Amino acid sequence: MQLRIPGPTPCPDEVLKAIGRQMINHRGKEFGALQNRITPKLQQCFQTRNDLLILTTSGTGGLESAVVNMLSPGDKILGVSIGIFGDRFIECAKVYGAEVIPLKYEWGQAVNPDDVKKALKDNPDVKAVLVTHNETSTGTTNPLKEIALVVKEAGKLILVDAVSSMSSIDVQVDAWNLDVVISGSQKGWMVPPGLAFASVSAEAWKAHEKAKMPRFYFDYTRAKKFIPDGQTPWTPAVSVYFGLDVALDMMLKEGLPAIFDRHQKVAEKARKWVKSRGLQLLAADEKYASNTVTAVKAPADMEVSKFTGALRDEYQVVIAGGQGGMKGKVFRIGHLGFVTEKDMDEVLAAMDKALPRAKKE
Amino acid sequence: MQLRIPGPTPCPDEVLKAIGRQMINHRGKEFGALQNRITPKLQQCFQTRNDLLILTTSGTGGLESAVVNMLSPGDKILGVSIGIFGDRFIECAKVYGAEVIPLKYEWGQAVNPDDVKKALKDNPDVKAVLVTHNETSTGTTNPLKEIALVVKEAGKLILVDAVSSMSSIDVQVDAWNLDVVISGSQKGWMVPPGLAFASVSAEAWKAHEKAKMPRFYFDYTRAKKFIPDGQTPWTPAVSVYFGLDVALDMMLKEGLPAIFDRHQKVAEKARKWVKSRGLQLLAADEKYASNTVTAVKAPADMEVSKFTGALRDEYQVVIAGGQGGMKGKVFRIGHLGFVTEKDMDEVLAAMDKALPRAKKE
Repeated sequence: MQLRIPGPTPCPDEVLKAIGRQMINHRGKEFGALQNRITPKLQQCFQTRNDLLILTTSGTGGLESAVVNMLSPGDKILGVSIGIFGDRFIECAKVYGAEVIPLKYEWGQAVNPDDVKKALKDNPDVKAVLVTHNETSTGTTNPLKEIALVVKEAGKLILVDAVSSMSSIDVQVDAWNLDVVISGSQKGWMVPPGLAFASVSAEAWKAHEKAKMPRFYFDYTRAKKFIPDGQTPWTPAVSVYFGLDVALDMMLKEGLPAIFDRHQKVAEKARKWVKSRGLQLLAADEKYASNTVTAVKAPADMEVSKFTGALRDEYQVVIAGGQGGMKGKVFRIGHLGFVTEKDMDEVLAAMDKALPRAKKE
Repeated sequence: MQLRIPGPTPCPDEVLKAIGRQMINHRGKEFGALQNRITPKLQQCFQTRNDLLILTTSGTGGLESAVVNMLSPGDKILGVSIGIFGDRFIECAKVYGAEVIPLKYEWGQAVNPDDVKKALKDNPDVKAVLVTHNETSTGTTNPLKEIALVVKEAGKLILVDAVSSMSSIDVQVDAWNLDVVISGSQKGWMVPPGLAFASVSAEAWKAHEKAKMPRFYFDYTRAKKFIPDGQTPWTPAVSVYFGLDVALDMMLKEGLPAIFDRHQKVAEKARKWVKSRGLQLLAADEKYASNTVTAVKAPADMEVSKFTGALRDEYQVVIAGGQGGMKGKVFRIGHLGFVTEKDMDEVLAAMDKALPRAKKE
């Protein structure tokens, strides 16, 4: 089986074995040592010395945690969106009472940092910018470094959805001055879903002190209090911790530059296939095409569900269709985490076989 | 190793094996079938035909979900507490703006339903009652059936923390008219932490429509929308689902009456030991002593940390100390989920050996 959706992603055997370990006391020494081993390894991957919180939730829960811990009802924020997950981040902030100035792009477009600069100039009372690094729904990666430069020059907080990029694509939390950065265990980390990670800068902690949105389960103050003991305020997803400990060792042994390079090569292979088959990437400018998920425009005569169905049922290759309004118009290949060029060769070979059988009736 | 804390609890080998299965697409047919198999089995254990939502979070996250989906800021509620977890439920409601009328008891006391009746009579504008069924911190089980009778006679909503009782102690959600009932996977369910369960009555759904507390990740409307497809709005903790599917089969094969009986027998063994050693249960009236966790008052000359340390390091028995203000004054034996009378015999034998070595210096 080739599970090639943008998460959950396949886990190495060593990770699966660790996940099946017997339970331990989450308030005991062994768990404390486990979290204290995992945290600095996560910080290495985040390229940060900021506090790193581990939350038992999905990536979306992680995004909610960034919102409710940094903002107050009525706060004006700039909500930058290039797709479904950007919209979700904005929607969450609205639900908690933020006043959102949207900066939205068409599907397949990446953010132009100049637009952010202008929006912040036009709205000097904006407190924070919400932005997606890698938009899973459109297979597009934003120029985060350049966006962050503009946001930090304007003296604003930047809250980043790096759920599907962190650990697979270069994200330099400290060098780029990113305030809160969220990722999720089932993406590039080679472990099952259940955990979200949040890095929190010194400036973010200052904003947190004044942030009045209600929060309990996701409260960063409560989480921080338990860091010294290697614990979390609420019972954590212990099995995923077991797997993560092993996966992080594998990742750091490979090394971040090698991991980023591998993701790029695998993605380039996918993009080359797309173009050579006369298909079109959804990403308008290939420069911004994602190295973790490739979104492809379905040709007019393709029935996407027939394509993904044939791939799954006949070739044991699982890819994703389009989300929301992109359903039926897009298919997406996930290539993040535990993936090699050989995996991608197998996937593309299966796609070649399935393509002719995906015609609309 | 005998892991005898009130959660996480040990998992059977079959469950651990299932947990280590390779990832699948959480939007695919296989996952849909998995959730559609699990949900009715959970409903059987909850003894309910109400909607049953599965949330990727801890028990505390489950409690938060009950609060934010049922209440509006400014709502008056009766917060019944007999310990740390009752206090936590109340604290969460306060954070989201509920006006809490507290009905608190001393550690070891159970709720007197007449007190609830009186409090509701004195406060006719109360909208909902928050109550803990089984208070893990004090090893005390409230007379939930009788409490619910009073609450429903008064026409109020009842939101129940059954995190550490459901599946181990009889809780009849439908027969007792319980509106929202929360449990957590790492308690009596014999699976790791990561999932919370929420049953939602028709009356609760009506309250939900008018409830204005902000919610996104925990929103029941969003969760309900995905039930027909056997999915969840956000990526679920797939591994725990795998284990839960197997554990529920084991539980239903044993049968609820047999499970409740086993928990009672194991607990009685623990209580008999406590009394025969001249120790005292924290539960003031043995009638309300919990069948899932036994809390014992530490004798004046006992150093609790020495006792739990010796048990852990020398006899591979892991029990819990007291929480919060009970630290150093109480030790607690968890006996829920995957536990037999033979397990308890081993635990008690180890405690007999460790007891003399737990004296204060």
